[in-house]
Amino acid sequence: MPTILKLGGSVITDKDRAETLDGPALDAAADAVAAAEDDLVLVHGGGSFGHHHAEEHGVSTTAGTRDADGVLAVHGAMKTLNQFVVSRLRERDVPAVPVHPFSLCARDADADLDVPLSSTATLVGEGFVPVLHGDVVAHAGKGATIVSGDELVVELAEGLDADRVGLCSTVPGVLDEDDAVISEITDFASVAAALGEADGTDVTGGMAAKVRALLALSSPAHVFGPDDLEAFLAGEEPGTRIG
Amino acid sequence: MPTILKLGGSVITDKDRAETLDGPALDAAADAVAAAEDDLVLVHGGGSFGHHHAEEHGVSTTAGTRDADGVLAVHGAMKTLNQFVVSRLRERDVPAVPVHPFSLCARDADADLDVPLSSTATLVGEGFVPVLHGDVVAHAGKGATIVSGDELVVELAEGLDADRVGLCSTVPGVLDEDDAVISEITDFASVAAALGEADGTDVTGGMAAKVRALLALSSPAHVFGPDDLEAFLAGEEPGTRIG
Repeated sequence: MPTILKLGGSVITDKDRAETLDGPALDAAADAVAAAEDDLVLVHGGGSFGHHHAEEHGVSTTAGTRDADGVLAVHGAMKTLNQFVVSRLRERDVPAVPVHPFSLCARDADADLDVPLSSTATLVGEGFVPVLHGDVVAHAGKGATIVSGDELVVELAEGLDADRVGLCSTVPGVLDEDDAVISEITDFASVAAALGEADGTDVTGGMAAKVRALLALSSPAHVFGPDDLEAFLAGEEPGTRIG
Repeated sequence: MPTILKLGGSVITDKDRAETLDGPALDAAADAVAAAEDDLVLVHGGGSFGHHHAEEHGVSTTAGTRDADGVLAVHGAMKTLNQFVVSRLRERDVPAVPVHPFSLCARDADADLDVPLSSTATLVGEGFVPVLHGDVVAHAGKGATIVSGDELVVELAEGLDADRVGLCSTVPGVLDEDDAVISEITDFASVAAALGEADGTDVTGGMAAKVRALLALSSPAHVFGPDDLEAFLAGEEPGTRIG
């Protein structure tokens, strides 16, 4: 069963400059992935590629668009970022291949996300490393809405019966009121106060929503920073363990 | 229920020159699609974009590859062609959006193709025109193999309960021994002799295989040439009616 690893958009892009990669950070992440021995499914966020297009076209996880130009702008920017990620991995001989959620997924009228798993599961079984990403997806009754990388991680972890889940973001873990990393979270109530204030700057959800979703998984999850990526992929338990 | 239209790779590309579009032919096809009133799902073939990469990497509908470079070469070329097709349709205000089979589909160990339909069906329901294409797909036990546009047409027609199916290729219909268009085919036996000789140049199957697959559909299908595309989309019955 694979390890699901999410690389946050803020890790691999310069979130303050439109469609700008953080090249050295992506290289470091790609080095860590290349050294990993487990079967992997990667997911990356949008960072400065997806988010500003989504805002410009008024599309979010709940607000849809029927404007094909809006859909193509978000999807196109995310494909560009995905191509950078896949290329950096290929340079290190990782058998990375793209899997675009817009082609794959849909939300029904209740906003439930359908992520058919046969393509990703078969790719992993054949030795490839599928690389998914936050994207637009068709949404019954709303046109198309955003699917976040975090939402995909949850679906993939459950559907593929993941061994482990890792979320690599720019913070070293889930932080308490004093900005210290919480080493383990086993229930939401005990950290609700510390997580009371959502991130606010991320259109696809803050830390509280992430923690709730990860607690619901049957696989253990880790939230950690870029410096701990190699350790996570080596089987260690960096950052915050959830579940 | 939508109309499924396949634009043959040989219609929209110059099949003799690698990765060369037949611009005027694509423009004419896009004009016809823009004038259509039915809900549409489009599928295009590979033509000079997909086929030579597939040959170069030794991958076909039955011969697989586990070489990520081979997968990316075929898939990348097909995405480039798909982007041309989507762009020409967008120039005419068709709400065309890309759906990449590599992200969506897989073959199991018996080579049965799984084409999950929620993304395409939801896109159509929301007023978009999904544009799929021949591609590589994950194949259990073989790495990745080719899925032809024709194979996708059959899956989409069945799964989406299509009203009508149209296959636009460079020939004006299914031809008899004297190269005259057969106006209607209702069973294979009556045309088996005329179709005895497969096309040979197309790695993804000749006319006999197409006819067999179309006869098995519950929707009526038409095989026609580029000059009849507008008529087909206007509800007429050009070329050869199958089924």
